[in-house]
Amino acid sequence: MQFAISDLIAGITVGLTILPQALAYSTLAGLEPQYGLYSSFIGGFIYALVGGCPEVNIGPTALLALMTSRHTGLGARSGPDYAILLCLLAGIVEFLMACLKLGALVDLISLPVTVGFTSATAVIIGTSQIKGLLGLKGGSGASFLDTIGSVFSNIDKVRIPDFTLGIASIIVLLALRKLKSFSFDSNKKVYKIINGCIWTISTARNALLVLITSCIAYSAQQSGPQPFILTGSVKSGFPRIGLPNFETDIPGANGTLVHQTFPDMVAELGPSIVVVPIIAVLGNVAISKAFGGAGLNPTKELIALSLSNIVGSLFSSFPVTGSFSRSAVNHASGVRTPIGGIYTGVLVLLAVGILTPYFHYIPKAALSAVIISAVIFMIEYEVVKPLWKCSRRELLPGAVTFILSLCLGVEIGLSAGVATDLAFLIHRSARPILSVAKSQTHSGLEYVLISPKHSLIYFPAIEWVRSGVSKAVREYGMIPVVMDCRNLNEFDFTAARGMGSLSKDLSAMGVRFFLLGAGSAIKMVLKEATGDSICTLETVDELESFAPNGDDNELKEVVAPLLKNRNNHKAEKRK
Amino acid sequence: MQFAISDLIAGITVGLTILPQALAYSTLAGLEPQYGLYSSFIGGFIYALVGGCPEVNIGPTALLALMTSRHTGLGARSGPDYAILLCLLAGIVEFLMACLKLGALVDLISLPVTVGFTSATAVIIGTSQIKGLLGLKGGSGASFLDTIGSVFSNIDKVRIPDFTLGIASIIVLLALRKLKSFSFDSNKKVYKIINGCIWTISTARNALLVLITSCIAYSAQQSGPQPFILTGSVKSGFPRIGLPNFETDIPGANGTLVHQTFPDMVAELGPSIVVVPIIAVLGNVAISKAFGGAGLNPTKELIALSLSNIVGSLFSSFPVTGSFSRSAVNHASGVRTPIGGIYTGVLVLLAVGILTPYFHYIPKAALSAVIISAVIFMIEYEVVKPLWKCSRRELLPGAVTFILSLCLGVEIGLSAGVATDLAFLIHRSARPILSVAKSQTHSGLEYVLISPKHSLIYFPAIEWVRSGVSKAVREYGMIPVVMDCRNLNEFDFTAARGMGSLSKDLSAMGVRFFLLGAGSAIKMVLKEATGDSICTLETVDELESFAPNGDDNELKEVVAPLLKNRNNHKAEKRK
Repeated sequence: MQFAISDLIAGITVGLTILPQALAYSTLAGLEPQYGLYSSFIGGFIYALVGGCPEVNIGPTALLALMTSRHTGLGARSGPDYAILLCLLAGIVEFLMACLKLGALVDLISLPVTVGFTSATAVIIGTSQIKGLLGLKGGSGASFLDTIGSVFSNIDKVRIPDFTLGIASIIVLLALRKLKSFSFDSNKKVYKIINGCIWTISTARNALLVLITSCIAYSAQQSGPQPFILTGSVKSGFPRIGLPNFETDIPGANGTLVHQTFPDMVAELGPSIVVVPIIAVLGNVAISKAFGGAGLNPTKELIALSLSNIVGSLFSSFPVTGSFSRSAVNHASGVRTPIGGIYTGVLVLLAVGILTPYFHYIPKAALSAVIISAVIFMIEYEVVKPLWKCSRRELLPGAVTFILSLCLGVEIGLSAGVATDLAFLIHRSARPILSVAKSQTHSGLEYVLISPKHSLIYFPAIEWVRSGVSKAVREYGMIPVVMDCRNLNEFDFTAARGMGSLSKDLSAMGVRFFLLGAGSAIKMVLKEATGDSICTLETVDELESFAPNGDDNELKEVVAPLLKNRNNHKAEKRK
Repeated sequence: MQFAISDLIAGITVGLTILPQALAYSTLAGLEPQYGLYSSFIGGFIYALVGGCPEVNIGPTALLALMTSRHTGLGARSGPDYAILLCLLAGIVEFLMACLKLGALVDLISLPVTVGFTSATAVIIGTSQIKGLLGLKGGSGASFLDTIGSVFSNIDKVRIPDFTLGIASIIVLLALRKLKSFSFDSNKKVYKIINGCIWTISTARNALLVLITSCIAYSAQQSGPQPFILTGSVKSGFPRIGLPNFETDIPGANGTLVHQTFPDMVAELGPSIVVVPIIAVLGNVAISKAFGGAGLNPTKELIALSLSNIVGSLFSSFPVTGSFSRSAVNHASGVRTPIGGIYTGVLVLLAVGILTPYFHYIPKAALSAVIISAVIFMIEYEVVKPLWKCSRRELLPGAVTFILSLCLGVEIGLSAGVATDLAFLIHRSARPILSVAKSQTHSGLEYVLISPKHSLIYFPAIEWVRSGVSKAVREYGMIPVVMDCRNLNEFDFTAARGMGSLSKDLSAMGVRFFLLGAGSAIKMVLKEATGDSICTLETVDELESFAPNGDDNELKEVVAPLLKNRNNHKAEKRK
């Protein structure tokens, strides 16, 4: 019972957060406001049934709205068709990822790349809202740079009322956000109530702002011309229920409509069909990690996400995923079970049915302010300083992601960042550090000990190791070479073959080559790849039992008695 | 002086090998025979000046001819233009690779991928020659499967004389090749001379076969209609000297010529501009490794290759690289310095000037036989057995390369093979083996020791490690967890952050988390990423100095005296 009340309160609080976000994000996605509402209720219902982490709220997010907006610019009629189809396809891809256990792919996205990616997205989303904030008309440009350019070329058309309202809204939102950390430290009941009020106001700040600015716009209209650009009429009533449209029409060159078949639509969506699910999974994993810890079943979470998208697409939803901000609200509101999502969903449905006429008066500048004051906290510059201090090369993938995301698009930026990271990883395997030192056995036989500082030697590394060993031979002369395999777990076949050639090369130069302490796995590969042509040692002292190389037979006859003498000498000493 | 004679003999022997190959490979490349000759002399001259390994012979190869043939199908006039431009561009890309030290990229191609690739190429080249062997007219199909299909649909048009000549030629060539291993083991002069003859006949077998079959064709023509399909007239004289054509015309849809500008031509060449140099470098590296050992300067070799292509393109050459078969002939002929290449070049130039009229009578089936009996030895099935025995998963990249090369083209096959290999490499870094064991300190304090069997933990691995540790905690209960870092060289920032979260998660569960024997590099990253929130140990026994976790204070008061007792007990025992 107490759980149910906690869930009810949390559900309603999240609902008050999701409503203004839904309206704002659907504008960001290039769609009419009602589509944001349609996208907001299914996630809660599905997650309540399937999900495992009470805090997670699945619904529209700024990032996915931005990625959807790339495909909605073709017209008021076809835009939603593309967005809803993308939602279905993304859900199907997520389902496939769950079945093939490909959710682990997000492991390939390192922290610097994540930071570069979310920061770039925040900048892109923030800039895309500047027009709304300034009261400039027309859509955003195709890219970040276009948007900036378009703002500057239209700077003379700024509408003072919208601009004032927008800036004021941002200041109020940031102040209310800050307010949350403020509370009276007292046990008196009145202070507790005040603390509760502060928390509620701070948490529901977006809804409050939208309510107040709408009232301002409404009352201004009663006393004269409307000073603000408004959201305009939001379609009332429930969404059409059914499969997405698999065909649509887009405006052609000369004003006529061009029919687009399903393959045409898929071609238009292109890489988004893969990138949107990956981004969605990335977001979802990050959230369930943050709130659910290591106990969650990632496959189950992925299925909850995929069902939210697949079922959502039947209710005209655009692509959805877990929202970090709403999940945090859920957490702070004391949610206990995923049932909270049902209350959120019901609240959104009520709004769709009843509140839509009132959404007409919401000033666009207020919605822009809601988005901007949410995304500026996604810019994570704090991570740069520790990275600079301890691991500068990791800044590169982050910077690549950030810059390419801004200039060429977030998909390209993300892919390039991951590629940079993987290139480093491969380079690390391909160029193991070899520590080279001259050493001697107990009886004073000199040898070169080469220890690779890596746990496996695979194909990209073997040439490097070969030339490293050759260099060591040139430096230390014609004494036996011992490769230390005690910390090595594995050779692959290419590496084993390369070791064979190395051994042969050295042998031709009159230098013996040994592997020290090779494990059974390494020995087996060596046997198959080189046919036992390489000598292995268990301890360094076994070196002494190997005769010097064939060519040196004369030398051997000279050296052997000397060595024997030395051994005797040592043996005597020990006695 | 002795060197000069050795080089002269080797140079001429290689020349006798390169002449029939040049004619055959230019047909394979879809070009008129003289282009093969034009491609055969520059490599020798350039390598004599720049190269470092006496054995290497740079010139046309079956593989590059095959890759060139993809761009020469557009017409007799434009075909050579594309081939020569590709030669220039490949040379420039090779030069860039040398400058940027990108020759190391071939390290990424593992042995199984190399084997899969060369075997697939051999099959493709071999099948492409079946038509010539059977006397079927018309070019080869676009792909391996097309070629097979086309042969079967035309099987009723097989010309018996060509077929007979072709099969006989193959048998003779294989027999003569086998002959080389046969020699009299005697010191008598007559046997030595016989051995020398056998070796010469075997080495110059291609030239001999071409000579004999031409004579047959010539004499047949004198006594009636020509029974064989002949090479036809080969353009006599030296090639045009000058830059390649940067514009050309190709046949359009309705028989007219369509003008192609430089960008059009580059677009047509497409990925070949990168793939051809990589294949060329791969071939060259393999040869200089086989004959030159580890002492060669790879950058110098790469520059020799790039100059051979760049300068070659001024003499109407198609892309060239080191030929394994001719380098082996060079080696077997006792070459001493790269000067040998000059004699080869001069011989080819003489042939271009004097012999071309006689090339008219070479039967096409004989050239097909030359190619087929060369490439069948490129199919390396022997490597499958040891791989199957010792490392089955390495068969996959090889199989992917082989099958996709056959079905979708060699570039796609090679790329997919390398990608498969790199995916394994990344997977290996992402999924380190964790050995988990319960252990205790000297004084009997129990802990879980987790040892990752990998030398570095990077971003793709950290989630895996986290869940592995969580699993260990569930299994072994609430005792301290110690991660063994003694064999670890490195954390990256993402991994260090993940360790921080893991430590926090465990701490919330009442389990203490320690890192054992972390090096200074790891400690620095940990400090910046987590702010010293993780305890590090130098030895396991330090564990005892850490109080059990806060929540367990009561337990501590009970356990501490017991531990103390045990310590005293042990200390007494030691005394």
